Amino acid sequence: MSAEEPTVHAAVSNGIPAPEIPLPFPDRPEIITSNLLALTDLAPDPRTRLIFRNLITKMHEFITETSITTEEWMSAIQFLTRTGQTCTPLRQEVILLSDVLGVSALVDALNNPAVGSATESSVLGPFYTEDALDVEQGESIASEGKGEYMFVEGRVLATDGTPISNAAIETWETDANGYYDTQYSDRAAPDCRGRVHSDADGRFAYRAVVPVAYPIPGDGPVGDLLLLLRRHNIRPNHLHLMIDAPGYRKLTTAVYPEGDPYLSSDVVFGVKKSLVVKLTDVNDEAEARKRGFAKGSTFKLLNFDIVLVTEEEAEAAAKQRAQEAAHIAGARL
Amino acid sequence: MSAEEPTVHAAVSNGIPAPEIPLPFPDRPEIITSNLLALTDLAPDPRTRLIFRNLITKMHEFITETSITTEEWMSAIQFLTRTGQTCTPLRQEVILLSDVLGVSALVDALNNPAVGSATESSVLGPFYTEDALDVEQGESIASEGKGEYMFVEGRVLATDGTPISNAAIETWETDANGYYDTQYSDRAAPDCRGRVHSDADGRFAYRAVVPVAYPIPGDGPVGDLLLLLRRHNIRPNHLHLMIDAPGYRKLTTAVYPEGDPYLSSDVVFGVKKSLVVKLTDVNDEAEARKRGFAKGSTFKLLNFDIVLVTEEEAEAAAKQRAQEAAHIAGARL
Repeated sequence: MSAEEPTVHAAVSNGIPAPEIPLPFPDRPEIITSNLLALTDLAPDPRTRLIFRNLITKMHEFITETSITTEEWMSAIQFLTRTGQTCTPLRQEVILLSDVLGVSALVDALNNPAVGSATESSVLGPFYTEDALDVEQGESIASEGKGEYMFVEGRVLATDGTPISNAAIETWETDANGYYDTQYSDRAAPDCRGRVHSDADGRFAYRAVVPVAYPIPGDGPVGDLLLLLRRHNIRPNHLHLMIDAPGYRKLTTAVYPEGDPYLSSDVVFGVKKSLVVKLTDVNDEAEARKRGFAKGSTFKLLNFDIVLVTEEEAEAAAKQRAQEAAHIAGARL
Repeated sequence: MSAEEPTVHAAVSNGIPAPEIPLPFPDRPEIITSNLLALTDLAPDPRTRLIFRNLITKMHEFITETSITTEEWMSAIQFLTRTGQTCTPLRQEVILLSDVLGVSALVDALNNPAVGSATESSVLGPFYTEDALDVEQGESIASEGKGEYMFVEGRVLATDGTPISNAAIETWETDANGYYDTQYSDRAAPDCRGRVHSDADGRFAYRAVVPVAYPIPGDGPVGDLLLLLRRHNIRPNHLHLMIDAPGYRKLTTAVYPEGDPYLSSDVVFGVKKSLVVKLTDVNDEAEARKRGFAKGSTFKLLNFDIVLVTEEEAEAAAKQRAQEAAHIAGARL
């Protein structure tokens, strides 16, 4: 080895020196992996080390076990590039990719494990906005003409059955065209979305429209991927809910009316059985008028209770699940 | 189940029907994975099925075994989005990510296994251009003032030692500042790059400059990742080579002068031991003048042979490696 050191362009070097650990030349594929893992062990943060050790191991196993060709890897590079570049302030294609590969649902499931009788979580999706308006009990979140009438009612409860008053319930849904308000270029104000608060008995009630199944955006790389896999791109119809009450874990979920043919093959894996609800036809104009619907109309009734867990209950459940996962991971290593 | 089916917005549905296989509701995390794998088995192309089965399994194992939190996953989403959006026609940050995670080197190693005494491959890197000019034997690929003089010479040979004539050797390198010509905004013509052809005896010779170690771009998300892992961002100094001769497998490689402190920790894992070469000081002005260098100068001599494999030799080696990989994958499943 010569004593001279080549000039390093200091302006953009990150200033970190060559590692002092011995590294063999990566003359065989497996040495690339072991060198990278050895370098990763030098990261200062333990959580970073754990995450990247696992990620690198899995990525390299994937490449090796499938014998990915140079051409296939270049296709993957181009796909990921295009996915990032499809994102705009109004569209998040990387989240969509995570959604259709079940990762969003998996992260949600792991971070929000079921706790006894409590209402389960579901994926947030990309159509939540922060500008939902307050709606009084019994009032409508949808303007006239947005779809078939639906009346939503129920109670917010703790796991021991105690009513939770003044819980903020944000709710949003598609109109009869399968579009959220944000998908209309001429959106002037929030529509088919609103915020209602539970009363002293934990009760909530509002008017809405029957949501419909809809396809996720199909004109980008994620759409192409679904075609390659010959998978449909439909989400079954659903009503989004986000419930926030002091002392309780904030819950992001949705309810899915029964009968939709896409329920169990939901393209983003969001539907849990406990979240499937029944819509009841109410063919009684007097009942419709009593609830504030227009003259000559009937409606569908959606009645369900929301059961929240306390922060303590949520943390205990998450801790237990993490311990189980660590046990499984330990057994695999 | 009700008989009614919700309206699907046909305009952007991809037209693929709900699958006819039974899918349980994904009420537990592992059912998300098994449902996605069952759907993936419906993809028409066997190679697509194999790749995505493996990819999904590894990704979901990663998420589960590390108990990725919702916040961590959102950081990953933002990182991947930013990586795609950092790409321009002149910068490929997704390839850079693949490089620093050892994936580019791994794909290269798997697709270009060592064959006996043949010259090994190395990563292409992002600085190859298609506009290199032909350079006559003994002429220079670098304009005056680009760095310390280096004379490059050697032979192109088959694995049995037969000289290969008229092999096209494309070669490119940094100047003494650690920059490729493409990194200068005022680049008027190719510099520190050229194409030389081997003569009837397989010999090649050209003038160049001594390349220097340099940092990969550090001002994007990949630079941030290296800081998080506390890894330097330096590539040891090297001379790129791409050799093409009829009947032989095209070779993309590089040679790495010995003594660089970043050789074995190369940020992109490109250095194989067989590619490390010796630079000899020639402190003899007569020798320098004989080779066409400017008056009053000395130079460094770089002498190495390039051994190419035939297409048949390359295919036999790749097939053997794929069989070994399939055997390993089979044993793991």
